Amino acid sequence: ADDFFFQGLNIPRSTDNKVGSFITGVDVNLISGLNTLGVSVARVDYAPYGVNPPHLHSRSSEILMCMEGELYVGFVLPNALGNRFISKVLKPGDLFVFPLGTIHFQLNIGKTPAVAFASFGSQNPGFVVVGNAVFGANPPIDPKVLIKAFRLDKKTVDYLQSQLWYDNHN
Amino acid sequence: ADDFFFQGLNIPRSTDNKVGSFITGVDVNLISGLNTLGVSVARVDYAPYGVNPPHLHSRSSEILMCMEGELYVGFVLPNALGNRFISKVLKPGDLFVFPLGTIHFQLNIGKTPAVAFASFGSQNPGFVVVGNAVFGANPPIDPKVLIKAFRLDKKTVDYLQSQLWYDNHN
Amino acid sequence: ADDFFFQGLNIPRSTDNKVGSFITGVDVNLISGLNTLGVSVARVDYAPYGVNPPHLHSRSSEILMCMEGELYVGFVLPNALGNRFISKVLKPGDLFVFPLGTIHFQLNIGKTPAVAFASFGSQNPGFVVVGNAVFGANPPIDPKVLIKAFRLDKKTVDYLQSQLWYDNHN
Amino acid sequence: ADDFFFQGLNIPRSTDNKVGSFITGVDVNLISGLNTLGVSVARVDYAPYGVNPPHLHSRSSEILMCMEGELYVGFVLPNALGNRFISKVLKPGDLFVFPLGTIHFQLNIGKTPAVAFASFGSQNPGFVVVGNAVFGANPPIDPKVLIKAFRLDKKTVDYLQSQLWYDNHN
Amino acid sequence: ADDFFFQGLNIPRSTDNKVGSFITGVDVNLISGLNTLGVSVARVDYAPYGVNPPHLHSRSSEILMCMEGELYVGFVLPNALGNRFISKVLKPGDLFVFPLGTIHFQLNIGKTPAVAFASFGSQNPGFVVVGNAVFGANPPIDPKVLIKAFRLDKKTVDYLQSQLWYDNHN
Amino acid sequence: ADDFFFQGLNIPRSTDNKVGSFITGVDVNLISGLNTLGVSVARVDYAPYGVNPPHLHSRSSEILMCMEGELYVGFVLPNALGNRFISKVLKPGDLFVFPLGTIHFQLNIGKTPAVAFASFGSQNPGFVVVGNAVFGANPPIDPKVLIKAFRLDKKTVDYLQSQLWYDNHN
Repeated sequence: ADDFFFQGLNIPRSTDNKVGSFITGVDVNLISGLNTLGVSVARVDYAPYGVNPPHLHSRSSEILMCMEGELYVGFVLPNALGNRFISKVLKPGDLFVFPLGTIHFQLNIGKTPAVAFASFGSQNPGFVVVGNAVFGANPPIDPKVLIKAFRLDKKTVDYLQSQLWYDNHN
Repeated sequence: ADDFFFQGLNIPRSTDNKVGSFITGVDVNLISGLNTLGVSVARVDYAPYGVNPPHLHSRSSEILMCMEGELYVGFVLPNALGNRFISKVLKPGDLFVFPLGTIHFQLNIGKTPAVAFASFGSQNPGFVVVGNAVFGANPPIDPKVLIKAFRLDKKTVDYLQSQLWYDNHN
Repeated sequence: ADDFFFQGLNIPRSTDNKVGSFITGVDVNLISGLNTLGVSVARVDYAPYGVNPPHLHSRSSEILMCMEGELYVGFVLPNALGNRFISKVLKPGDLFVFPLGTIHFQLNIGKTPAVAFASFGSQNPGFVVVGNAVFGANPPIDPKVLIKAFRLDKKTVDYLQSQLWYDNHN
Repeated sequence: ADDFFFQGLNIPRSTDNKVGSFITGVDVNLISGLNTLGVSVARVDYAPYGVNPPHLHSRSSEILMCMEGELYVGFVLPNALGNRFISKVLKPGDLFVFPLGTIHFQLNIGKTPAVAFASFGSQNPGFVVVGNAVFGANPPIDPKVLIKAFRLDKKTVDYLQSQLWYDNHN
Repeated sequence: ADDFFFQGLNIPRSTDNKVGSFITGVDVNLISGLNTLGVSVARVDYAPYGVNPPHLHSRSSEILMCMEGELYVGFVLPNALGNRFISKVLKPGDLFVFPLGTIHFQLNIGKTPAVAFASFGSQNPGFVVVGNAVFGANPPIDPKVLIKAFRLDKKTVDYLQSQLWYDNHN
Repeated sequence: ADDFFFQGLNIPRSTDNKVGSFITGVDVNLISGLNTLGVSVARVDYAPYGVNPPHLHSRSSEILMCMEGELYVGFVLPNALGNRFISKVLKPGDLFVFPLGTIHFQLNIGKTPAVAFASFGSQNPGFVVVGNAVFGANPPIDPKVLIKAFRLDKKTVDYLQSQLWYDNHN
C-alpha cells in the first residue's frame, strides 16, 4: 500500500525564508503510485504576511483551499484578455481556482500563520516561480534582456540578480 | 471572481443518513470557471463509524487526505490483477490514492466524527455508488441478474432492492 | 505481421463456471502491436441464462454487438443522474453502448448459448467485476464496511465473502 | 435507451457497386449516445472478389475481425519505416490491426461473400478512400499534380478522373 | 542547449529526384528535447514545377507557410463530406491548413524554386506518401487489389509497381 | 478555402513600441478552420536590440525558427530543476525549442531588424507576458505582494506599476 500512501501533510513546515511561505508538493516523485493517474496535491504554509510569490504550473490548473488564516489571492488573465486581474480574500473553507498557465500568488494578510491545500490535475504539475526564473536563473539571463523587458536600470537589475533567490519548495 | 470561487467547505455537513457520511462535491456544476480545467475537489464528513460506501469515479483518479479522525480506506485492483485489495488506516495528515476506475471506500473507525478532502483530475469526475447502482437502480435491474451474479436468494435480493438507497451526496 | 494479428475469436469458450459466461479479452497483452493505438476487443460467450455480471471498465467506453441469442443488457447512470437504469433486449445484429465508468451487465434470456462482441477505445480497458471487487477482494475487505454499506447482516456478508468468486475472464 | 442502441447490423448490405464491398459505419451520427465516448464500429460486406479499397481513418486505429469468408488484408507503414507492407490472410475468427493513419485494404479472395466487423477508438473515425480523394475529388485536383506525382500519362489520369468514383459507404 | 537546438534549416536541399521536391522534417528524431512536447516542423524545397505529392500525416494537422515561389496547394475532405477538394494558390507570406488525416499536396507552379515551412502539433507527425504506400509498398501489394480498387489494367499497375518510388524525405 | 487560409505573414510589422518587437499570432481566432486541429503559428518582428520579453504560453510548447538577424534566446527550467537557464544564439535557419509552460524570451543582438517564425501545438496557445501580468495587471496587484515577492522597495514597485505596459501582440 505504500506506493499509494503519504504521511504527515498535517505538519507545519518552517516558513523561515525570504518570502515567509513553504510549499510541500506531493506529486509522483513522492507517491510512485500516482504514475499516469493525473492528480497530485500540495500543502502551503504561510508565516504572518508571508507570500507564495507569483508563479505558475506548466501542466495543470489548481484549486486552492484556505484551511487557516486569511489569504489575498489572485491570478492574471493572458494578454489577449487584457491582463485582467482576478482576486479574492479567502477565509477558512474558501476555494479559489487558478487556471492552467496563469501567473498567480497568495499573500497571508493576517497576523497569524495560514495554511492552504492545493489540488492539481497532473501527476507532476511543475512549479515555475516568476522571480526565480527571471532574476534567479542559473546561469543568469543577460541583464540587457531584463533592463529592456522590465524597463529597469542596470543597478536595479544587478541588485535583483545578486539576490540569492528563494527556495521555498520541497 | 465569483466564477472561480466557492465558499464554506469548512462547514461540517449533516451525516444523519443510512451510511453516516456525506460527500460535498465541488465540481464544474458549482464553480463554472472550472470548465475545461481538469480539476475539482470534494469534502467528506463521516459520523462515528460512518462509511463512504464502495464507489468509483468514471473520469478521474483521486487523492484523499484525512483531516480529522481515523479512516480505514482501500481500493480493489481489477480482475486481471487478482482483485488485490490495497488498504491503510489514515490519520490526520495522511494521503491515499484511489486509481482511476477502481472501487474504493472509507470507514470512520473512531468514536468521533472524521473529515477528509479529496482531489480529482477532472472538472466532473462522476460518482457511482456500487450499492445504489446495483440494487437501487431506477427502474430496478431484473432480480434474476442479481440473484445469479451475486449468488443471493430471491428474498435477499428483494430486501436489497426494497431498501430506499442512500443519498449522501450534494 | 504477427504483432498485429490474433487467431481464433470464432471459437466458443467454455462457460462452465458460476455465472455461465466467459469473456475473452483481446487487448495489448495479446496483440503487442496495439501499443499506443487506443483500441481493443473482446468476445463474450453466454450459457443459457448465463450472466456477464455487473462490472465496469476503468479506461474505456464499450459497444457490445449481439451475435447469437437474446441478451438483456443495461447500465446505470451515476448518482448525480439519479442512478437511472438504461436497458434493452438485444437480438442478433443489435448494438448497445456502455458509457465510460458505468456499471453494466448482460443476461442471456434464451434457452440457447449466446455470443457477443465488444469494442473498446483503449488498448487495455480494464475489467472490474463488482461482485469480485466488493466481496471477493484479496485479502478481504473488513466485513464492517460491507455490513454498513449494503445493510446486510453479518451472516449474509460472511456467506458472500466465503464464496470462491468467479474467474470468467481470460 | 434509444440513444445507446442500434439495430440491424447483422443484415447483409448490397455490394452491387464498382468495388464489390459496402461499409456500414455506426458512429456518433447514428448513435447519439456515443458523443464524447471515444468508440464506434462498422460492418463490412464483400462480394466474391470484392475489395474494400485502400483507405485510412483520420482519427482512429482499427481492429478488423473476419466473420465469414477469406480476406487478404494489409497496411503500409509510413515512409520513415520504408513503406513496409504488413499483410495476412484472415479466416473467420481472425483479427488484424490497422494502426492510426496507415493506408490499408481488404480483398475477399474467396468465391463466396465475406463479412467483417471493425472496431474504432473514436466516435467518428473518418473514412478517406485513397482513390476517391486523389482521383475523384470534387472539384478535381489539377491533373498536372497527378501526372507528376504518380508518373502517369495525361490519358491515364484523364481516364481515372473521368470515372465516377465509388460510394461504398453509408 | 543542444537537446533543444537544430541548425541549418535555411539551407536549400537538392530537389533532384522524381518529383522535384524535398522535405526536411525536424521532429523528435532530430531534436531530442521535443519528447512529449507535441510540436515539430519541416522545410519543403520545390524545383520549378516540382510537386510534394499527395500524402498525409498520421498524427497531426499542419500549417504550411509559403516562403518563396508560388504554390498550388489543396486537401480533400473525407468521403462523408463528399470528397470536397479545398485548394488555393499561395504566394510568399500565405498560410494554408491541412486538417488531421486528410490527403494533401503542393505543386510549384512557378519557373523558379519555391520554399515552404510546415508546423505540426506532434513530436513525430508521420509522413505517408500515397503513391509510395499504394504502389511502392515493400513487399508489393497484390496487384489484384490495385486493379480492382483503382480500375486500372494489369499493365498500368505493373508499370506503377515497377517504378522505383521516390525518396524525397530526410 | 478561406476558412483554412491566411495572407500576409511576410509583411514586417511595426516594432515602434517600448520593447522593440511585435508578435503576429495566427491562431483559431484568425483561421477558423484551425478549430480542434491543435496547431497554430506566429511571426515575430524585432527592431535592432528589440526584445520579445520574458513570457510563456499556457497551452503549448513552441519551436522558434530564426529567419533574419541574430537572436539571443533562452528559457528557464522549473524550480525542481534548479531554474537552470538554457540559451543559445540563433542565426538564420536555426531552431530552438521552448517547452510547455517555461518562461522564455528572445533578444535581437544585431544592428538590423530580425524576424522569426514560431510553431505551436495548440489552436490557441495563450500568451502571458511576465512583466504585463505581474506589474501591469488590471486592476493592479496589491504592491505589498510585489514588494515582498521581488524584494523591491515601494518606490521601484510604484515605478513599475505606473508604467503603461506594452502591447506588442496583435
